[in-house]
Amino acid sequence: MSASALLKSRVRRPSYLKKLAKAEDLIDMFPHGSYIGWSGFTGVGYPKMIPNALADHVEKNGLQGQLKYNLFVGASSGAETENRWARLNMIERRSPHQVGKEIAKGINNGQIKFFDKHLKVNTAAPSFEGLHDITMTDLPPRRKPYLIMSPEDRIGTPHIPVDPEKVVAVVESDYPDQTQPNHPEDETSRAIAANLIEFLHHEVKHGRLPKNLLPLQSGIGNIANAVIGGLASGGADFKNLRVWTEVLQDSFLDLFDSGNLDFATATSIRFSPNGFERFYQNWDSYAPKLLLRSQQVSNSPEIIRRLGVIGMNTPVEVDIYAHANSTCVMGSRMLNGLGGSADFLRSAKYSIMHTPSARPTKTDPTGVSCIVPMCTHIDQTEHDLDVVVTEQGLADVRGLSPRERARVIIEKCAHPEYRPILKDYFEKAEFECLRKGWGHEPHLLWNTFDMHRHLNDFGTMKLPKWDFRGYES
Amino acid sequence: MSASALLKSRVRRPSYLKKLAKAEDLIDMFPHGSYIGWSGFTGVGYPKMIPNALADHVEKNGLQGQLKYNLFVGASSGAETENRWARLNMIERRSPHQVGKEIAKGINNGQIKFFDKHLKVNTAAPSFEGLHDITMTDLPPRRKPYLIMSPEDRIGTPHIPVDPEKVVAVVESDYPDQTQPNHPEDETSRAIAANLIEFLHHEVKHGRLPKNLLPLQSGIGNIANAVIGGLASGGADFKNLRVWTEVLQDSFLDLFDSGNLDFATATSIRFSPNGFERFYQNWDSYAPKLLLRSQQVSNSPEIIRRLGVIGMNTPVEVDIYAHANSTCVMGSRMLNGLGGSADFLRSAKYSIMHTPSARPTKTDPTGVSCIVPMCTHIDQTEHDLDVVVTEQGLADVRGLSPRERARVIIEKCAHPEYRPILKDYFEKAEFECLRKGWGHEPHLLWNTFDMHRHLNDFGTMKLPKWDFRGYES
Repeated sequence: MSASALLKSRVRRPSYLKKLAKAEDLIDMFPHGSYIGWSGFTGVGYPKMIPNALADHVEKNGLQGQLKYNLFVGASSGAETENRWARLNMIERRSPHQVGKEIAKGINNGQIKFFDKHLKVNTAAPSFEGLHDITMTDLPPRRKPYLIMSPEDRIGTPHIPVDPEKVVAVVESDYPDQTQPNHPEDETSRAIAANLIEFLHHEVKHGRLPKNLLPLQSGIGNIANAVIGGLASGGADFKNLRVWTEVLQDSFLDLFDSGNLDFATATSIRFSPNGFERFYQNWDSYAPKLLLRSQQVSNSPEIIRRLGVIGMNTPVEVDIYAHANSTCVMGSRMLNGLGGSADFLRSAKYSIMHTPSARPTKTDPTGVSCIVPMCTHIDQTEHDLDVVVTEQGLADVRGLSPRERARVIIEKCAHPEYRPILKDYFEKAEFECLRKGWGHEPHLLWNTFDMHRHLNDFGTMKLPKWDFRGYES
Repeated sequence: MSASALLKSRVRRPSYLKKLAKAEDLIDMFPHGSYIGWSGFTGVGYPKMIPNALADHVEKNGLQGQLKYNLFVGASSGAETENRWARLNMIERRSPHQVGKEIAKGINNGQIKFFDKHLKVNTAAPSFEGLHDITMTDLPPRRKPYLIMSPEDRIGTPHIPVDPEKVVAVVESDYPDQTQPNHPEDETSRAIAANLIEFLHHEVKHGRLPKNLLPLQSGIGNIANAVIGGLASGGADFKNLRVWTEVLQDSFLDLFDSGNLDFATATSIRFSPNGFERFYQNWDSYAPKLLLRSQQVSNSPEIIRRLGVIGMNTPVEVDIYAHANSTCVMGSRMLNGLGGSADFLRSAKYSIMHTPSARPTKTDPTGVSCIVPMCTHIDQTEHDLDVVVTEQGLADVRGLSPRERARVIIEKCAHPEYRPILKDYFEKAEFECLRKGWGHEPHLLWNTFDMHRHLNDFGTMKLPKWDFRGYES
């Protein structure tokens, strides 16, 4: 096989060019039951040629369910490769985070054994030379500190050292990452962002945050985009910002362009197709302010805590005592996975959950309250969250006891239609538990999921009346 | 006032001796509503003279409920001071961890506003000169790494720097710490320890742990004592052990005496009265192998992860998917608080929960199953736990999907009388959720606390039959 000119310019060790192969010739290297590591993170930089060749092979030879793999991915890979594997029943076990309808389906119908861990696997994209800071880590007892004191600090090398004898083949790929356009901001996400930015101003005013804040972490989605977009707009008036996060979305380009962002570091840049175009066109202005790190570093509790990161994420639901569900709808159905949310929220100096107060169902535009009596699945605990913010308002729960927290979260964050429903639950729980001397964090365990039950039965959480039978008063 | 000879020998800055005062003369320095920081950790090294003088003042002048304080303690202080304050309604707000019947009562009847955080406040005991490694920490963005690579590393000073102008008075105290004798090991705790030690041997055999293990962290209580005691006995056969933990209990003295323990570091030594006597008598042999650190260091996720600590703690209950409740009985009643459990379990290389499979109620010696369908309160998530161990057996859940975890936890860890009850729940949940395509972590939300309800109504969790009405099949 002969190499293309572009490949020759990228592959600088001549012996590697002798190992050039086509993906379809490598099928035998992947026997049934193999443990396979994929690079790839939030749908960029994932392998495409070999996974598709293996899928073709399964399809052509009717091997569905007979050629299955244990898959370990940086985080989510491209939906078009993984979904195809899921449809062809090629995934025995999968960890961690995933994105893709068929993958989620396979996990929730029991075909794929999924275990959801905090993200801790290295990844790096092959292009973007010079943008990376790659650190290899020893195992305990020989592990060393990460001597990073600021988002721009470099402690590694721009490449991943690999033993050349372990490289069995080099496959050329010209298949681009398949990213999706972003969900647009809407009135709700802009209102959430405005509430949050007001809070940050308040903290600066009281001397608890420096004028340029502390390094920002921001999750994925349109609320996160709106928050970062809000910081880019003139009104926010924060200068010299820095970012320590897992993934950069399009809105960070706006923040760079606004002149308010001095530096950003992350594991992955997951722009929309338009965003990538913009990024490549202005490479010379973005590249000096950008650093990509392995996820073990970007999500390291050590550095997140040291830098005092401001962590912001979107949950499935938050409860009145400030626990949050990040993964499992109705306690059972996996969405995408935990990702880095818990690494950031536990160790951040400010741990912030932002969510709309309600979401639509098929029959009710506010049929799901994102504030509930008790989360049906808990990924973030009450010990970790500082701030809950919705388009209704912001609850600063630092230093509050659980009963104080419940009052402020219901009052400030819940949708007006759910406030009386949640208040009824809380007040009855408080009354019953205090008189039994159980009143630290009052719950009525046999009623706590009644709103979810009503959603299941009637398509809305708007319970007309709580059924508190079984309590004497 | 004149100083005693002993006090003169301890207080080396002469100007301080001019500030000598009696506790009862300092009452005015503590106005109603003050925020007070107490040293003290797990019931040792806590202040006694001033708190008791303030309590006397309240009692003598009938000021119950009128002189209230916001109390921030290293962790738990002495029950005899705090309980008295709680009885006299002198505590407005309290954080974090606490121990003491009256304190817990005040929290659960709503008198005391308690917020439960991961422990993060400095503490140090005034005697034991030279045993400490004290580190002051900057706030972000000026926070620095903790350059500790091994339990014996010193990065601080043996004293706490204090601005002498801020010292308003020196009060002599000769009131000793009031510790309690330990609960003795029993058959159950010894069986748990044996299961756990067998697992550690297994990990060494497979090359996943070095022969001298990795630094051990151990919680408080008779199971923890039995585990450490088991390591001290000849049978365990681990040499050159090291300990990185929060609190040392009596059994660590046995481990030192066995010759198997090379070094131990912690924030506090909380021995029984007999243990302290033994410790003081053999001071010269223990002191060179011992180092006391501030809790911010001992519980630092940064160092716990770097060292690859083996973390072991006792929960209230664990659920079939490996979430754990460390704090709130029946989801509502606070026991002592979170302590360092989450700091260790999240960041440890091995995160282990050890518990009896069942606990007694008044009417049933195994009326409470410590393995439940869903925890009524969650402090540690499924993403954090690696191993659950009871006297019945050990479940190694690393890399398992939730449904695999449920099977192995029920099979290996549950009490035999609860195994069929839990299995019935799990199988019905699995069936119902899989057919709806929600099967990642199957739950029946309207039944998930039925065992707790049965306990509440009948004094035992032994549900004769699940009431699955409302599901079609």
